[in-house]
Amino acid sequence: MFSPLIDDLIQALRSLPGVGPKSAQRMALQLLEHNTQGALSLAGALQRAVEGVKRCNSCRTLTEHDTCRICSSTKRQTRLVCVVESPPDVIAFEQSGVFSGRYFVLHGHLSPIDGVGPADLGLDILGQQLQAGEIDELVLATNSTIEGEATAHYIAEMGKAAQVKVSRLAQGVPMGGELEYLDGGTLAHALNSRTTV
Amino acid sequence: MFSPLIDDLIQALRSLPGVGPKSAQRMALQLLEHNTQGALSLAGALQRAVEGVKRCNSCRTLTEHDTCRICSSTKRQTRLVCVVESPPDVIAFEQSGVFSGRYFVLHGHLSPIDGVGPADLGLDILGQQLQAGEIDELVLATNSTIEGEATAHYIAEMGKAAQVKVSRLAQGVPMGGELEYLDGGTLAHALNSRTTV
Ligand SMILES: [Zn+2]
Ligand SMILES: [Zn+2]
Repeated sequence: MFSPLIDDLIQALRSLPGVGPKSAQRMALQLLEHNTQGALSLAGALQRAVEGVKRCNSCRTLTEHDTCRICSSTKRQTRLVCVVESPPDVIAFEQSGVFSGRYFVLHGHLSPIDGVGPADLGLDILGQQLQAGEIDELVLATNSTIEGEATAHYIAEMGKAAQVKVSRLAQGVPMGGELEYLDGGTLAHALNSRTTV
Repeated sequence: MFSPLIDDLIQALRSLPGVGPKSAQRMALQLLEHNTQGALSLAGALQRAVEGVKRCNSCRTLTEHDTCRICSSTKRQTRLVCVVESPPDVIAFEQSGVFSGRYFVLHGHLSPIDGVGPADLGLDILGQQLQAGEIDELVLATNSTIEGEATAHYIAEMGKAAQVKVSRLAQGVPMGGELEYLDGGTLAHALNSRTTV
């Protein structure tokens, strides 16, 4: 439809999550028409981030430092470790402001069918931290999916073997959640785990 | 929230139209977690497009060539010129497949208050084409806004002075448009311009 360089740019913009052909076209034309400076800044930021960002050697979250801001903070309870599947989960906790420990990011969950085993999730690193006595409690915050539960179960066993306290996020009705739209499994669990008021 | 390189990337992604803080964050993490190759491709495509894309010297649409694909085509009626405000308007016509002439892209509309005059819209170039007798008919397809109408009026006078046929897109109820949601101005115009069936 356009000239090759514009078509290439539209195609490349589609690698962004949630960007379809229409939005990619709109983005490309808007940048080239009105914001070439923004386009160049974005190109530079992408390149620098891809080259510089790696995983924290303690918690595996994304950072350009050897040890991330949270792991190097003196204000965090470093012996309390929340295990999550992905960096956005870290953000969700940080934004809630309720967790004062540190994290361990799996970047996925156990999935034998896809060939994802413990080492792919960095569980050798977590194992070393457990063995070295660096952890008092593991809070398992993997997703409430079959894979997330299986992964939590595996890590719980690791924690117990190292005689460390292991907990799992409570399950139930989300705050503000309307029962009408809740799935049956959550509702059943919430009913079975009901608390006296 | 994140490390500086990731924060910079999130900020840079926000220069894309329609991308708010949440989506920018999701895009940055997704690229760094799962698609660094896509991120590098996008960086390259942005850079090459900004460096290579300019305006067609005949119609002012975006292209990396001196003369765009449409202006250089031997299959188009080059003496029939559709005047539009922006490159996406060209795409809308091309996708409809109903127009066989070529285009002239203003990249805006007359706006004395913003200091946008005829030369900023390339009307000196259009004037030269009119004077050189290269155009038989001007189809004015600027937007149906006050500025678009004023711009169309100005170009119509240019065309008439050069004794060239000038037309304007018909106005009325859009196909598939529900009257209920139509603005009063369009409805009034459609009523006044009603045709016998
Ligand atoms: Zn860390
Ligand atoms: Zn052209």
